[in-house]
Amino acid sequence: MAELKALVFDTFGTVVDWRSSLIADLSAFAATRDVKADWAGLVDAWRAAYQPSMARVRSGERGWAMLDTLHRESLDRLVGEFGISGLTEDDLRHINLGWHRLRPWPDAVRGLTRLRRQYIIGPLSNGNVSLLLDMARNAGLPWDMIFGSDLFGHFKPDPETYLGVGKLLDLAPAQVMMCAAHNSDLRAAQALGLQTGFFPRPGEYGPHQVRDAEADGDWTVIAKDIEDLAAQLGA
Amino acid sequence: MAELKALVFDTFGTVVDWRSSLIADLSAFAATRDVKADWAGLVDAWRAAYQPSMARVRSGERGWAMLDTLHRESLDRLVGEFGISGLTEDDLRHINLGWHRLRPWPDAVRGLTRLRRQYIIGPLSNGNVSLLLDMARNAGLPWDMIFGSDLFGHFKPDPETYLGVGKLLDLAPAQVMMCAAHNSDLRAAQALGLQTGFFPRPGEYGPHQVRDAEADGDWTVIAKDIEDLAAQLGA
Repeated sequence: MAELKALVFDTFGTVVDWRSSLIADLSAFAATRDVKADWAGLVDAWRAAYQPSMARVRSGERGWAMLDTLHRESLDRLVGEFGISGLTEDDLRHINLGWHRLRPWPDAVRGLTRLRRQYIIGPLSNGNVSLLLDMARNAGLPWDMIFGSDLFGHFKPDPETYLGVGKLLDLAPAQVMMCAAHNSDLRAAQALGLQTGFFPRPGEYGPHQVRDAEADGDWTVIAKDIEDLAAQLGA
Repeated sequence: MAELKALVFDTFGTVVDWRSSLIADLSAFAATRDVKADWAGLVDAWRAAYQPSMARVRSGERGWAMLDTLHRESLDRLVGEFGISGLTEDDLRHINLGWHRLRPWPDAVRGLTRLRRQYIIGPLSNGNVSLLLDMARNAGLPWDMIFGSDLFGHFKPDPETYLGVGKLLDLAPAQVMMCAAHNSDLRAAQALGLQTGFFPRPGEYGPHQVRDAEADGDWTVIAKDIEDLAAQLGA
């Protein structure tokens, strides 16, 4: 096996807890204003719109758009569907930037800090660079480099994303490990020759999560969380 | 004036001392081997080849090539011209990666660390991402993001580089400050609407430096070094 040099991480769900963060962020916002809504429902519907919104870009049905733009379009539609009124343009912009303020899982900063001593680390996310950079500064994620989807003009699982990391780092695919709490992400990376690291996030989708409870592929490393991944990699 | 959000730094000469670093790096390498040469002369000639090698890419005479590749082509030529023999392929690769091991000017890490508390910071360099990332890890440069020329497929002063930063950060050009010890770099950035920060590096080209001893434009900030820049920006 090639010597491992860099680890890249899926972000939403893998490094940060988008669901709890957004529900808390929206509830705190709503408490300062006279706006009532089913915020947990809105957050789940917002996330459900994520894959379909990117699918339209992947298929070529629409041109490249950064995730902030897709999030905003979905939000505008859902605000109507959830019967939420009284939000200004500034409010909507603030809510949309909630994705920049997501909180890390408890093991994330410690685990990444350990890994960084030995390996190059970065997010490989469908988020745009500005989203991931704000998130890193807010959450204290110690990335060496930020691999936002706008660097490649493609969303995962398009091959340009996984292979683009090695190109920018001047590494072979097998010197890079894709790390994610999502088996499908690892399957796409493995097919292109990357190493793979899995750890589950059973609370990602809330109390009724049905997917990704455990590893279902032949991954290079299967860990409990990012700190355990660091331990298994000797970092 | 727009609120300043991000500072991007020219790297070779502005943040790191390429000349002294490379002469020391090559001399240390030569001391371990039976290879004699005018290493200071080689380094100056190598740097003199820098602009002409990028000019061939800018003009379209050749396709995109990352700076590591251009450095290596120049090195291979200069090794012959300087009559240096006995170097293996591994030796040449090691010497070429000397650009990844450049040392920072004494004020750089402290000044950048201060600036980062308040602003997004990154290199905007003709170096490729892997070069700048290795440099950051070796020298302890606390960048938020690395704007290597390979992100844009262009070298400075092509507009795609200066404007590409704002695009990736979702900022207007005037919210970004280009910082450099080179007036020409700032002139190109200013013409595109960026703010500008100058500080001189009188020792960059060694004892006989004739250029960039002082600011020769109407720059947003003129400082003594990066720590002074941080002080003037209230960071």
